[in-house]
Amino acid sequence: MTDLGIAIERMEQLKESIDIGYLCICAAFVLLMQVGFAFLEGGCLRYKDMQSIMLKIFMNTCVTIIIWWLVGYGIAFGSDSKEFVGSSVYVGFDMKNSKHLAEFAFQTAVASAATSIVSGGAAGRMTYIGYFILSVVFSSVIYPFCAHWGFGNGWLMKLGYHDYAGSGTIHASAGMGALMTTMLLKPRNQRFNPKYAEHFEPNNPIYITLACLSLWVCWCFFNGGSSLGIANGASVFMSRAIMNTFIAGASGALTVFFIYYLMNIDQGNRYSLVMICNGNLAGLVAITGPCDNVDAWAAFVIGILGGMMMVFANRVLFNLQIDDPVDAISIHFACGMLGANLVSWFDMDTGIVYGKGGYQFAVQMLGSFIYIGWSAIIHLITLLFIEKIGFLRVTLEDEYEGLDPATMGCCAYEMVEQQQ
Amino acid sequence: MTDLGIAIERMEQLKESIDIGYLCICAAFVLLMQVGFAFLEGGCLRYKDMQSIMLKIFMNTCVTIIIWWLVGYGIAFGSDSKEFVGSSVYVGFDMKNSKHLAEFAFQTAVASAATSIVSGGAAGRMTYIGYFILSVVFSSVIYPFCAHWGFGNGWLMKLGYHDYAGSGTIHASAGMGALMTTMLLKPRNQRFNPKYAEHFEPNNPIYITLACLSLWVCWCFFNGGSSLGIANGASVFMSRAIMNTFIAGASGALTVFFIYYLMNIDQGNRYSLVMICNGNLAGLVAITGPCDNVDAWAAFVIGILGGMMMVFANRVLFNLQIDDPVDAISIHFACGMLGANLVSWFDMDTGIVYGKGGYQFAVQMLGSFIYIGWSAIIHLITLLFIEKIGFLRVTLEDEYEGLDPATMGCCAYEMVEQQQ
Amino acid sequence: MTDLGIAIERMEQLKESIDIGYLCICAAFVLLMQVGFAFLEGGCLRYKDMQSIMLKIFMNTCVTIIIWWLVGYGIAFGSDSKEFVGSSVYVGFDMKNSKHLAEFAFQTAVASAATSIVSGGAAGRMTYIGYFILSVVFSSVIYPFCAHWGFGNGWLMKLGYHDYAGSGTIHASAGMGALMTTMLLKPRNQRFNPKYAEHFEPNNPIYITLACLSLWVCWCFFNGGSSLGIANGASVFMSRAIMNTFIAGASGALTVFFIYYLMNIDQGNRYSLVMICNGNLAGLVAITGPCDNVDAWAAFVIGILGGMMMVFANRVLFNLQIDDPVDAISIHFACGMLGANLVSWFDMDTGIVYGKGGYQFAVQMLGSFIYIGWSAIIHLITLLFIEKIGFLRVTLEDEYEGLDPATMGCCAYEMVEQQQ
Repeated sequence: MTDLGIAIERMEQLKESIDIGYLCICAAFVLLMQVGFAFLEGGCLRYKDMQSIMLKIFMNTCVTIIIWWLVGYGIAFGSDSKEFVGSSVYVGFDMKNSKHLAEFAFQTAVASAATSIVSGGAAGRMTYIGYFILSVVFSSVIYPFCAHWGFGNGWLMKLGYHDYAGSGTIHASAGMGALMTTMLLKPRNQRFNPKYAEHFEPNNPIYITLACLSLWVCWCFFNGGSSLGIANGASVFMSRAIMNTFIAGASGALTVFFIYYLMNIDQGNRYSLVMICNGNLAGLVAITGPCDNVDAWAAFVIGILGGMMMVFANRVLFNLQIDDPVDAISIHFACGMLGANLVSWFDMDTGIVYGKGGYQFAVQMLGSFIYIGWSAIIHLITLLFIEKIGFLRVTLEDEYEGLDPATMGCCAYEMVEQQQ
Repeated sequence: MTDLGIAIERMEQLKESIDIGYLCICAAFVLLMQVGFAFLEGGCLRYKDMQSIMLKIFMNTCVTIIIWWLVGYGIAFGSDSKEFVGSSVYVGFDMKNSKHLAEFAFQTAVASAATSIVSGGAAGRMTYIGYFILSVVFSSVIYPFCAHWGFGNGWLMKLGYHDYAGSGTIHASAGMGALMTTMLLKPRNQRFNPKYAEHFEPNNPIYITLACLSLWVCWCFFNGGSSLGIANGASVFMSRAIMNTFIAGASGALTVFFIYYLMNIDQGNRYSLVMICNGNLAGLVAITGPCDNVDAWAAFVIGILGGMMMVFANRVLFNLQIDDPVDAISIHFACGMLGANLVSWFDMDTGIVYGKGGYQFAVQMLGSFIYIGWSAIIHLITLLFIEKIGFLRVTLEDEYEGLDPATMGCCAYEMVEQQQ
Repeated sequence: MTDLGIAIERMEQLKESIDIGYLCICAAFVLLMQVGFAFLEGGCLRYKDMQSIMLKIFMNTCVTIIIWWLVGYGIAFGSDSKEFVGSSVYVGFDMKNSKHLAEFAFQTAVASAATSIVSGGAAGRMTYIGYFILSVVFSSVIYPFCAHWGFGNGWLMKLGYHDYAGSGTIHASAGMGALMTTMLLKPRNQRFNPKYAEHFEPNNPIYITLACLSLWVCWCFFNGGSSLGIANGASVFMSRAIMNTFIAGASGALTVFFIYYLMNIDQGNRYSLVMICNGNLAGLVAITGPCDNVDAWAAFVIGILGGMMMVFANRVLFNLQIDDPVDAISIHFACGMLGANLVSWFDMDTGIVYGKGGYQFAVQMLGSFIYIGWSAIIHLITLLFIEKIGFLRVTLEDEYEGLDPATMGCCAYEMVEQQQ
């Protein structure tokens, strides 16, 4: 080999190292989303259920990591991937290559985030063992196949389904999991009794704010990291993804701020810290799929549509008396479906607003419905199994008392008073 | 082109990709500063105003992002920039280049941080709509021009004004905004009545600690990110900025720790978690301007001077009965002015302590006063307008009751008690 | 020089810039660990001691940074390093090279984390001045020598001691510091009186969760950053370190979850958010040393062993009536010793399970005992000196009243009630 050849080879190695470094940084930020989910969901529940949801999220993070090492990463991203299921890198085999190590970290962190979304539906009334089983199934069966089909060179991807960081692949499928879980669990006791309405107000808006702002930051790497690197031209998709993540999050939050302001125009209480947070998250979920290839103005519009969709879904669920304790369904399911389908409208290359898009429209519709159908079916089977073995719902006494006192003997920061 | 030429071109592309990746990471960390500001200011206020300030900060973050996409980034960093105002990249046009996308994300996050500084002056008594208007003006007019003149190849920069990450350009100008806002709003009711002094103690020092430590970490990228990259020799300024950010933050905090210890030598309560946090932030603001080109010993001294300035300004403001609810003025305004002018003393190339500096001294003085003058005038006009249309200050009843109960119907984590 | 030569030289410079950028990012994440330590320890103590421990951690962070600039970094990583002590880069001299600046930031942040581990032993009853002296000694004498011997090309490293990110060098030596400190301070008043057991329950499991999840994320860079870069093949160690950090943290947490579940099988309260957090940290400490060169399955096993060790040490310490207020000893000391010695079992090149390891086993054993012996001796001398000058332990009244009311005149978020 010539000297020049050696130099070029070294440069290729350097590029790979850079991509690995970037992916590992993204992986860490996506793992940090678990702090966000823990505080978002903890803040949304009653005070006396707060630790139980955090324990669930901590547990599902650990379960997902172990399961992904064993089978999840292999199913989803096995390097000799078949269209339906991957067929290598199980149990960490064949992962000597450091690109695989970094991708494992990133994709496992993403899978953990997906699992945490499901926990929203289980909030406040599911047993730990039941939720443990559900996490195992979600992270070993439900999500890995979704990931393979849409991200890992599977059949949907080959059909042309485009969902960059996973509005449909992740949010809609996990949001459907939250919906199935909450429906099979039935609403929390007295949830829709107007007399007790304020018992179900989020107990800590401050935690929700902490969570939401942190999630927004991490979302930049959730979306930006989906470029899987920065070399070889990937940086353009990465940086556009981040810019759009900024804009859609902002427009989603402001949209809900103004909707709420106008909806409550004849009341004293026209502002809500929680709702601006939810609007932000709605915008973020909606931009997740299209973020790499839409213009800034489109991200602005997508954020607005996400905010509106969240408010609408929230109202519909309430009227249907479907208990959505942490707004997981109205944010992740509804805006996830929205985002997956907005790709076919706003994508700069294939979008309907650019005069294209018949085929893309069909394939996005197909993909998103395949995801929620797959998720719904396996969740249903799993939840019925959990119900059968008696681990679905805690006793009414435990629920009334609060899951923390009932299962841990103490409340989050209640002790404060006792110790004075 | 020769093979070598192609290889070199590819290396240049790789360099750009690396700078983009680095900038996006910095952008995310600077966005994370909003968590810091939210918890810093929330922790400083009364318990019953905590959500209102967090809502303001969340709102101004979103407003800044949208405004910067529309006009702010164009004014400040338009690529065909004129000396007084930039003239391109408005509304995201001409931003196909991914370096622009990444710079947009970084500079927008910086602008959001600047806007949040102003919110400190509005804490506890300004209406949401009034603050919304102020945020729009600050992020579309006041700060973008500051940024253009000092960062975006504008007239001050061409004169030789050196303010690396913006002690003057950002902190002094935004701190002046907080000062004007708090002066036009007048102090909070009973603020300077000694009988009620403890009502105005920070309600949550734990949140302030969380905020301050997080801000310190993010500040590394606020300062380090101002290199706008790491390739082509930028890494030396970047890494020196980060080292100096470590040292000045530490010396600022320790200075205030010892000052406070000595000041209270005859009292029982000689320690304050909040004051060590403020000292840390004071050191960080003071090093922001000179961080790229001063020695470690100078960073140590600058941190000490910052800590002393903060304590001094805090006393002066109290004696003048200017209400500085979150110490924004004594930290950002006073130490920002200090930092912008310490450049001319400690800069390794142009500093007075190295026997140079007549011209640099004059231009730093000019620049920093231009910034606070510009900021003061536009803030004054805006605030008078807001007063005229009746959106300046909430009613006395709402203020007494607390902004959270008055505008949101609930308190942060008060609910805890109700639900037991 | 030929054109090709120039291009290659530029590529080498680019590699260095990339390593610097990566190191600075790692430095910031490791500094962020102080948030984790502050909330972990604050959450573990009584409510009325919470601010005091946070002030100690904030103070020791600042002290470590200043001391490392003055002498610590020179002792540990002086570039003309001798086998026993480094001999350059004191007081920032000879640090014009930007690689040094970045390494300073990273290693100083690591040293700050080590210092914070010691604070666990001082929790709830040591004076601020006493702890200040202890921090100065730890960061100027105890830890810099440990770092030089094991990381900085010192004699242990030359013997072949392998402890990638420092299970022994950092965690065992600092954990021994916590043990000596807590033993010389004696237990907190009434700590082992069963009547008051619940007074010593962690006051805020929510803060502990925030801390633990944040620490896990930062730990990726604590471990991954020990590659000191990503170019020139370092990315393989870095990415493997991060993958193993994911897996061992998860297996540690799940192990303790199940142990606790089985141990309490006949009680109602079978779940503990705090214990799953401790298990996670135990797994992380144990993997810190071997993380760069063990397989994923070994990381899984190491995490399990870490979790078991933590539970075991926790029981032993309780039975010996050694007060371990924040579990620093059972996590950092016990699992640090474990991790340093597991290198010789699981290392892919030198491990006993791969049929090698006689020499490595001996040298790991030697190194880890040297570290704890060195740490124990200097801590003992320092603590006896502090006792002699009367700054060891606060008065019984102050301790009973709580350190926050006694030294700061207020409690963390107690004020909430007062202001209603």
